[in-house]
Amino acid sequence: MIKYPNGQKKKFKQQLNVASSSNRGIALEDDLNTTNNYYLDLDLAVVHKKPVPIKVVDVSYPNRSLAKITKAYYVTASTTDYNGVYKGRALDFEAKQTNSKTSFPFSSIHDHQIVHLQKVINQQGIAFVIIRFNAYDETYYVIAQDLINLYYKTRRSIPYTWFKENAYLIPFSLTPPVDYLKIIDQLYFERE
Amino acid sequence: MIKYPNGQKKKFKQQLNVASSSNRGIALEDDLNTTNNYYLDLDLAVVHKKPVPIKVVDVSYPNRSLAKITKAYYVTASTTDYNGVYKGRALDFEAKQTNSKTSFPFSSIHDHQIVHLQKVINQQGIAFVIIRFNAYDETYYVIAQDLINLYYKTRRSIPYTWFKENAYLIPFSLTPPVDYLKIIDQLYFERE
Repeated sequence: MIKYPNGQKKKFKQQLNVASSSNRGIALEDDLNTTNNYYLDLDLAVVHKKPVPIKVVDVSYPNRSLAKITKAYYVTASTTDYNGVYKGRALDFEAKQTNSKTSFPFSSIHDHQIVHLQKVINQQGIAFVIIRFNAYDETYYVIAQDLINLYYKTRRSIPYTWFKENAYLIPFSLTPPVDYLKIIDQLYFERE
Repeated sequence: MIKYPNGQKKKFKQQLNVASSSNRGIALEDDLNTTNNYYLDLDLAVVHKKPVPIKVVDVSYPNRSLAKITKAYYVTASTTDYNGVYKGRALDFEAKQTNSKTSFPFSSIHDHQIVHLQKVINQQGIAFVIIRFNAYDETYYVIAQDLINLYYKTRRSIPYTWFKENAYLIPFSLTPPVDYLKIIDQLYFERE
């Protein structure tokens, strides 16, 4: 049996999982966590996924130091899932995946997330949406303003062909799996 | 009976509540929510409090559309409570209050929050801590790097006198109750 130093085995398994296309359907969030941890460890950016908002109704205290939540409900998020800081600039983004081969349905993005992204743009934050087409194993960086403009034109969906022409394909690598800072560098920092 | 237009009464009550010192002990979070909503409504900044992280263990489905969490636990936050964007720059901060008249105890800030704030600073984000002394009804803006330096010197507490000399008293007004952007403007934007 091969022995792995502290945690290496787990990491290796994660990477295999990432590389296997059959698992990509559920893997976008995992890939982003791996990516953000990689950025954090190397001091490249500080980006975290926000906790899922939950409304707590009842809590019991089985002992003095432990609070056990016994009744609670999921609440719709009023913002995007991810935000943080890169070279002083605020980053704010949402991540979505679709199994469709032909289009990305707007139904998976909430109205208030659109409003939130617009507010971030108005404040000059770097706002975007990461969208993965599972069928093609392709992950795109979409400038939030482009997505918002389409949203107000047609609230139904964005054709896959639009992504090929207007979005930025995020290069896939094992470290990190979704290297979105590469796109941000191109769009916001290379001319500096 | 005086009639108030849509929601004015509630707002007025909130303001009275904010102004009453007897309620200030529990009011810092409320004051910050009011402040952040004010900033958001006037397009001055986009700052949100992160949801409390909760680990969900069991969920039941009393009907198809409802997920009821029946067993869950609070998890220690790995970052600060507040972050957002102001004039393109990333903001990141923690807010704490104390009933002590003599010092602010470091015990109320977690180690990993210190580490997180340092990472935000390294990424050139605007990192700070808002600390309220309930006894004096004073709310201070502390530059995160100052607090971190003290933290590594003495892990116990910061004397109240230190705040008088080294921190920035946030002006109190009814709209908004904790106008921390005023301090940020002074520190980061006025020379521009």
